[in-house]
Amino acid sequence: MSPAELHADSIVIDGLIIAKWNRELFEDMRKGGLTAANCTVSVWEGFQATVNNITASNKLIRENSDLVIPVRTTADIRKAKEQGKTGILYGFQNAHAFEDQIGYVEVFKQLGVGIVQMCYNTQNLVGTGCYERDGGLSGFGREIVAEMNRVGIMCDLSHVGSKTSEEVILESKKPVCYSHCLPSGLKEHPRNKSDEELKFIADHGGFVGVTMFAPFLAKGIDSTIDDYAEAIEYVMNIVGEDAIGIGTDFTQGHGKDFFEWLTHDKGYARRLTNFGKIVNPLGIRTVGEFPNLTETLLKRGMPERTVRKVMGENWVRVLKDVWGE
Amino acid sequence: MSPAELHADSIVIDGLIIAKWNRELFEDMRKGGLTAANCTVSVWEGFQATVNNITASNKLIRENSDLVIPVRTTADIRKAKEQGKTGILYGFQNAHAFEDQIGYVEVFKQLGVGIVQMCYNTQNLVGTGCYERDGGLSGFGREIVAEMNRVGIMCDLSHVGSKTSEEVILESKKPVCYSHCLPSGLKEHPRNKSDEELKFIADHGGFVGVTMFAPFLAKGIDSTIDDYAEAIEYVMNIVGEDAIGIGTDFTQGHGKDFFEWLTHDKGYARRLTNFGKIVNPLGIRTVGEFPNLTETLLKRGMPERTVRKVMGENWVRVLKDVWGE
Repeated sequence: MSPAELHADSIVIDGLIIAKWNRELFEDMRKGGLTAANCTVSVWEGFQATVNNITASNKLIRENSDLVIPVRTTADIRKAKEQGKTGILYGFQNAHAFEDQIGYVEVFKQLGVGIVQMCYNTQNLVGTGCYERDGGLSGFGREIVAEMNRVGIMCDLSHVGSKTSEEVILESKKPVCYSHCLPSGLKEHPRNKSDEELKFIADHGGFVGVTMFAPFLAKGIDSTIDDYAEAIEYVMNIVGEDAIGIGTDFTQGHGKDFFEWLTHDKGYARRLTNFGKIVNPLGIRTVGEFPNLTETLLKRGMPERTVRKVMGENWVRVLKDVWGE
Repeated sequence: MSPAELHADSIVIDGLIIAKWNRELFEDMRKGGLTAANCTVSVWEGFQATVNNITASNKLIRENSDLVIPVRTTADIRKAKEQGKTGILYGFQNAHAFEDQIGYVEVFKQLGVGIVQMCYNTQNLVGTGCYERDGGLSGFGREIVAEMNRVGIMCDLSHVGSKTSEEVILESKKPVCYSHCLPSGLKEHPRNKSDEELKFIADHGGFVGVTMFAPFLAKGIDSTIDDYAEAIEYVMNIVGEDAIGIGTDFTQGHGKDFFEWLTHDKGYARRLTNFGKIVNPLGIRTVGEFPNLTETLLKRGMPERTVRKVMGENWVRVLKDVWGE
């Protein structure tokens, strides 16, 4: 099987995309051979603004049903593959949209949300993000984890602080993930995870999606798809070939205003980060270039069976563990 | 001057009342000779529910303008004294109503809110309360403190955790307070403040209102007004006679449902405390018995000049420092 044939035959899952949702992106997802993606519909928004994001996304999916379908179960992911479409899974990058209501967890599950990051960069009612001092998982946070376990929403810890992450890993009765992270073994950064942290999540049945966000890679915006593959291999050496997948963090289509919003606490308060120019690694600058990743992993010697797992099969398995269907 | 005459002549401020707001209570405030009180209008409520509490309270004050007037400045407190009415100052016991909007601080100042407790018992976006592990003041919390300083809202730390309290005391450029607390030197309790904590807030220009909430007193519901006076004397020995006042925590008129709401996180989630039967100390069971406190302090040997300070003058001075008017 050629690399292109393998890619076309594989289940390809992107564990984190926060791109601008429109038909052009959906077309690029099809070009990239994406079977499904965890698509961010909430970061700083509260409950109602998040519901509004979801209703707008529902409309967009309906209007582009020749390209995409909604995903609520892993059966929906299989269906997307069969139909040659991309499954859109709703995810949050912040538990802020739950506000102070445990009951909103189930509401959002019913609206199609399957993955929720517990904190985005800073403190919320649940715990603390990775860009400020982290006091750990709150009592309310423990109740939220229990409710996410009950209704079947996966806990994501990518932007979560080290202490809160450790405590969510210990608290959750279902697998949790870093949906999109890089190892600090290759570059020290508050957003990157240490070897110990990667081992800890894997030892507790968790999952790691590897990102390629240039500021977290050693070579920054001069990185290539080979640097991304190297990071994937590095993480796999620690967590094993069954607990790893892809989580690109594609931001395709967004302009300066969006990044200003992302990089300030609550979307407008103090500045938390300043990444400067963001360019994805050469060879995987756009979603449409996804097949290059399969090719690169093969070329570097990864067995076909393992490439299939990394590119998507592992994600499907762990999502089924969490969702139960 | 007899004790009754002194009481009638004094400015009498209650730094914290969370009673059921109605005409009967306002009548009891007049009977008790209260010049003004910090009246809680938000605990677990978000922005809009708090605005609704305020509009309901505005209507109640208008309808009972023979007994009460609104307080926004210390001049309003003097006016209440002159008119023989009780000034109603709006306060929050939780910064939760600010939600994630720094701009809401000024909005509430404009609606008449003069004191805001940073956290109520548990973690919020600002910091953590005294009934769970406390990771300290968040970055957003520092922005909120700065904005409260700017617009003139006093930071209250009574139900706030030890670490967050210390950091607010250091962060604030204006005096902060424990509006209603008791010393753990007389009884160990998560809500009580150690000698070191009392000294720390006083050394940094802060203020302490002493409560009489029975579960925090050594003799519990068997306490009398003399036990309350003893606690006041104990605190005064640490903070001095200029940094101390009254903050009763009267809950008069509320039923079981209200206490169930108060004692659960967010008003409905996990139970945080269980006080059992709550009976105020004999001699000061109701707001109307306030004159007994002046009498008791005098009887125990406190000089008249000091009694005036403790009963209200100190509160007026520190509120003027914070409000600027």
